[in-house]
Amino acid sequence: MPHPNDPKLKSFVAVDPDSDFPIQNLPYGVFSSADGGARRVGVAIGDFVLDLAALDEAGLFKECVPRGVFANAALNPFMALGPDVWRAARVRISELLRHDNAELRDDTGLRNKALIRRNSVRLHLPFTVAGYTDFYSSREHATNVGIMFRGKDNALQPNWTHIPIGYNGRASTVVVSGTPFHRPCGQLKAPDAERPSFGPSRKLDFELEMGVVVGTPSAMGTRIGERDAADMIFGFTLLNDWSARDIQAWEYVPLGPFQAKAFATSIGPWVVASEALAPFRVPGPVQDPEPLPYLRQSEAGNYDIHLEVALRTAAAEKPAVIARTNFRHMYWSSVQQLVHHASSGCAMNVGDLLGSGTISGPTPDSFGSLLELSWNGTRPIALPNGERRTFFEDGDTLTIRGWCQGEGYRVGFGEVAGTILPART
Amino acid sequence: MPHPNDPKLKSFVAVDPDSDFPIQNLPYGVFSSADGGARRVGVAIGDFVLDLAALDEAGLFKECVPRGVFANAALNPFMALGPDVWRAARVRISELLRHDNAELRDDTGLRNKALIRRNSVRLHLPFTVAGYTDFYSSREHATNVGIMFRGKDNALQPNWTHIPIGYNGRASTVVVSGTPFHRPCGQLKAPDAERPSFGPSRKLDFELEMGVVVGTPSAMGTRIGERDAADMIFGFTLLNDWSARDIQAWEYVPLGPFQAKAFATSIGPWVVASEALAPFRVPGPVQDPEPLPYLRQSEAGNYDIHLEVALRTAAAEKPAVIARTNFRHMYWSSVQQLVHHASSGCAMNVGDLLGSGTISGPTPDSFGSLLELSWNGTRPIALPNGERRTFFEDGDTLTIRGWCQGEGYRVGFGEVAGTILPART
Repeated sequence: MPHPNDPKLKSFVAVDPDSDFPIQNLPYGVFSSADGGARRVGVAIGDFVLDLAALDEAGLFKECVPRGVFANAALNPFMALGPDVWRAARVRISELLRHDNAELRDDTGLRNKALIRRNSVRLHLPFTVAGYTDFYSSREHATNVGIMFRGKDNALQPNWTHIPIGYNGRASTVVVSGTPFHRPCGQLKAPDAERPSFGPSRKLDFELEMGVVVGTPSAMGTRIGERDAADMIFGFTLLNDWSARDIQAWEYVPLGPFQAKAFATSIGPWVVASEALAPFRVPGPVQDPEPLPYLRQSEAGNYDIHLEVALRTAAAEKPAVIARTNFRHMYWSSVQQLVHHASSGCAMNVGDLLGSGTISGPTPDSFGSLLELSWNGTRPIALPNGERRTFFEDGDTLTIRGWCQGEGYRVGFGEVAGTILPART
Repeated sequence: MPHPNDPKLKSFVAVDPDSDFPIQNLPYGVFSSADGGARRVGVAIGDFVLDLAALDEAGLFKECVPRGVFANAALNPFMALGPDVWRAARVRISELLRHDNAELRDDTGLRNKALIRRNSVRLHLPFTVAGYTDFYSSREHATNVGIMFRGKDNALQPNWTHIPIGYNGRASTVVVSGTPFHRPCGQLKAPDAERPSFGPSRKLDFELEMGVVVGTPSAMGTRIGERDAADMIFGFTLLNDWSARDIQAWEYVPLGPFQAKAFATSIGPWVVASEALAPFRVPGPVQDPEPLPYLRQSEAGNYDIHLEVALRTAAAEKPAVIARTNFRHMYWSSVQQLVHHASSGCAMNVGDLLGSGTISGPTPDSFGSLLELSWNGTRPIALPNGERRTFFEDGDTLTIRGWCQGEGYRVGFGEVAGTILPART
């Protein structure tokens, strides 16, 4: 039987070559009918969602997955079953979608029930976020921010090349792509102001990130190694860590960002399984100085994921691409981040979300935030319709897309989009 | 009918005057038989736990609480019912325990079933921790830490008197009193070392705090006021935010503490209802400069809670008190912390835990951490048996107790204790 990643596999569901969702991908999400109904787990295939709960009810998973696990409003129960079940389920889903397998293809009744046009469903937050941790692992991003705030000579903090620096984020406001949110208010203080004031953020920004979804737990008091960490990662999704730079600048000393990043974090509706990304693994940048032994990797830890950021203002007819970069630039890998996260004995839970940190590339058109793209507001971004932006204005919609490019097919993440509503006063 | 806080109330259950758990208290916890069995909600009364699930089964809550809500392994479903139900339940529990009410007192069968000796039950984490946030709201603590690390002239950061500074903690390792944990390992770097190393923390510390338990949620995108915040607070518990100072010193710039506080946070088994603490409300310190309007309070926001910290080494015959302080010293109140927490539109959830921040008083014997008590290791603490401590050694047990002193009775929190096991290598 061919491996689900085999580039030669074809589905009886028609899939365009530039679709994010060929049979080699099979990303997991949670959906319901657009007009309501129960949430359940599905995978994207071409322009369709395959309803896994419906297939399960029809007895098609009885060899590999406990009954009912897809009839859930979150991926957590499925993820908790662990990597052997993830692999078996993916093999089975791939098999059911193959052009040369009649089981589903020729069962018109079941096919009509289980294959639903994607534009007729509502996509939900794919998993219950247990904890949200945000890292800071792009050397280019950390250097850019460091130059802006501390000058060129002290850009990178001394700990940065030794520790995958991260902090705990706020899980309660992680939302699925398409969820609009209000511009946050907070304490703002201009450097020359005598006192702070409270009001709407004027430096609202995005952060282009990938999110790691932790599928299996580790116990409090135990550390994990490279292999454990790799096995614990269920998959990846797109992530936008919306940030209010002015709130952040005033609040973050000495304990880090708090309200500046607590108002919204958007993730994509699709979680691409780690296994589907395996063909796109690449070595990360050379790490110098060599990491401490607990952080050393024997396998390539990065992924070749193309990333594209587009901004559409309220007045614009279409989105304009404002940045292009690649996940492969990250200095610290997701496995290193997870190993470090558990290094103190911190328990990891099913549904933990790990933001990679802002993904900036080496060139000014590959930066992953407006802070960097507009160099803290000093170099406004010119948009095709003549508008300019330093930070977001109300009505702006930001969309991030990401995909791995195979030969003749893509393994894509879809998009994560969000629109900024005016501040509530 | 007398109010449950009435100092004149008496229970048919005998309660010593120095017990933490008179009828005026009625703190909530989750327990099971010491030999196993289902977890359920109870309140402490004298030397007993009153099994609320058993009373509910007997129909004694049918007027005020939905059936089955106490037959749960966590307080969350009860808390989610909101302050009107909390008040009604407390009135009813108080009524059932009064010396002049025969309902439970004279029902020997039910009494024998529902009143269980506290020393024969096992106490569990009282609620599922949705999110854990740790504040930094003692002026004395922030000043002490500032002097040690930045010198006297820059002790307090400029934002500190304007913002209740806080950061997101790690909810996955919040454990109930009595749970031992291993000394954490992490990256350590002495100031004069060229590179960091990985190993067991040598500066393991406690932080004496109170924990606020959020009982009702607020929606993403909404801010809350003083009254909303007060209504959302279900109650308070003791909290010890164990900290590895050497890991913290090396990792915390620029995004705050991460693994230094991710290995264990201990809370007390009893959550004292906000209402039970009402007689002990006191004004906090004068806030100068005046807080921004959204943080102003019209009501006294602090509580007069006596706090005592005791250390028992593996070699000691009994614990030695190493600090005494009071929760009333806090500069920012719990209500101000919660209002600020939601000020960006951050959603608050049922079961959110807010650490007050280390509670240090004005005198050297009232400091809430070893960092301060030993002045970063420079002034070892002399213990009665001749031992000395700067930071914890393996086998040490730290116990925090807290209580409000009424006239002839105490409203107490019990204790939060934890023992340090050797690092896992």
